[in-house]
Amino acid sequence: MNILICNDDGIDSPGIHALAKALKEVGKVTVVAPRTEQSAVGHAITMKIPLRVTEYYKDGKFFGYAVDGTPADCIKMGIRNILKFSPDIVVSGINNGSNAAINIIYSGTVSAAREAAIMDVPAIAISVTNHDAKDFSYAGRVAQKLTKLVSEKGLETGTLLNVNVPDVPEDEINGILLTKQGKSKWDDIYEQRDDPYGKKYYWLTGKLMDVDTQLETDQFAIKNNYVSVTPIHFDLTDYKTYEYLKSWNL
Amino acid sequence: MNILICNDDGIDSPGIHALAKALKEVGKVTVVAPRTEQSAVGHAITMKIPLRVTEYYKDGKFFGYAVDGTPADCIKMGIRNILKFSPDIVVSGINNGSNAAINIIYSGTVSAAREAAIMDVPAIAISVTNHDAKDFSYAGRVAQKLTKLVSEKGLETGTLLNVNVPDVPEDEINGILLTKQGKSKWDDIYEQRDDPYGKKYYWLTGKLMDVDTQLETDQFAIKNNYVSVTPIHFDLTDYKTYEYLKSWNL
Repeated sequence: MNILICNDDGIDSPGIHALAKALKEVGKVTVVAPRTEQSAVGHAITMKIPLRVTEYYKDGKFFGYAVDGTPADCIKMGIRNILKFSPDIVVSGINNGSNAAINIIYSGTVSAAREAAIMDVPAIAISVTNHDAKDFSYAGRVAQKLTKLVSEKGLETGTLLNVNVPDVPEDEINGILLTKQGKSKWDDIYEQRDDPYGKKYYWLTGKLMDVDTQLETDQFAIKNNYVSVTPIHFDLTDYKTYEYLKSWNL
Repeated sequence: MNILICNDDGIDSPGIHALAKALKEVGKVTVVAPRTEQSAVGHAITMKIPLRVTEYYKDGKFFGYAVDGTPADCIKMGIRNILKFSPDIVVSGINNGSNAAINIIYSGTVSAAREAAIMDVPAIAISVTNHDAKDFSYAGRVAQKLTKLVSEKGLETGTLLNVNVPDVPEDEINGILLTKQGKSKWDDIYEQRDDPYGKKYYWLTGKLMDVDTQLETDQFAIKNNYVSVTPIHFDLTDYKTYEYLKSWNL
């Protein structure tokens, strides 16, 4: 099995090294990842400037290809110019910090997997629910399990699995749940500060408004120590509103 | 009616000036837009560095606020820090170049409107199907019409309208069609070149694989000189696959 790996935390982040290690047990792994951290870049792609690709070594050993672009760029570049064929699966992560509910929209990790789905390659995005996570061993085994499952059973073209793993000791995990995207979202606040020259600048912060209360949502599942697996796609059509808008007689 | 306007081509692009002019006839317009072009940034937001906001003047007259961030940043900043209340509607554009089918995913124009929908504000993204469009007067009137319609009739929370206007003389427009997101997508190619120092670089290019053949899709509607209006949302759950995955017994 040919596995293409990407992330948004950058090619030197511990999560992608843990993911590569875990998936080398189930297939041939190629790593193509951003040279630098690309969190919250969403599905940005680079068109106005060219990309560079360099080989990245860790402890004197070749690890993968670093692209000075976004996660979605890495998938396009990885499939078109590095592999030059479609891998059997793309796995993106392991991300530091959950990508559930509204965060799916902002996530570079998810967008890498989504770009794969756009290119008709089955894909998984996987995150651990802690920005300072240190131990990726259980999440690595979840990635192994789901990679094998997707490979055996297949996924509808254009669909990817968004996986979130609670950052708790493995014996506190309550199981793996199939979920839907939750509705929790951010209450944004811009902190206003003055720079050393007396000019104002604004820094985005805020808190998550946690409105999900059902185990069938990603946000509530991870809060209750379940691994959450959400199938997502890139058909953004709102079919309910589509029906409603017929009455507008545009 | 309070109208917040944004775009992804930057605050000095002709499309946003045409939009502001058109919408000043139907409400009080506030412009908050990226200082520089932000095409294809998708739903990127700026978290690791602070934002700056400056007043932007055109021909000596105040036009709006320039933010050195992404379209989604502009909406958050516009609602939280500039208006400090929720406008009645957000309108994003008028974009140079269509945002139909797969391009909805990459579009900064659409992401600005989507950020508004996330913040519970009704929103419209509007584009003209030509990267070098010069005449935005008809698209401006379409924006007027839809802004009034949305204001009168309302939209489901979390839904926005993605509008594409063919760049043809108005008497060649066949009408306005309610559509779904098409399935046309890019066949990506990276052009490999050598820089003046003999190092390789790669530039993304490609051609759209035009697979849509039904007038009920955005891509085919605009190809046939219809204005396309697609309701989209940010619930990415693939409900069909959700049902299928129940058989996996995760």
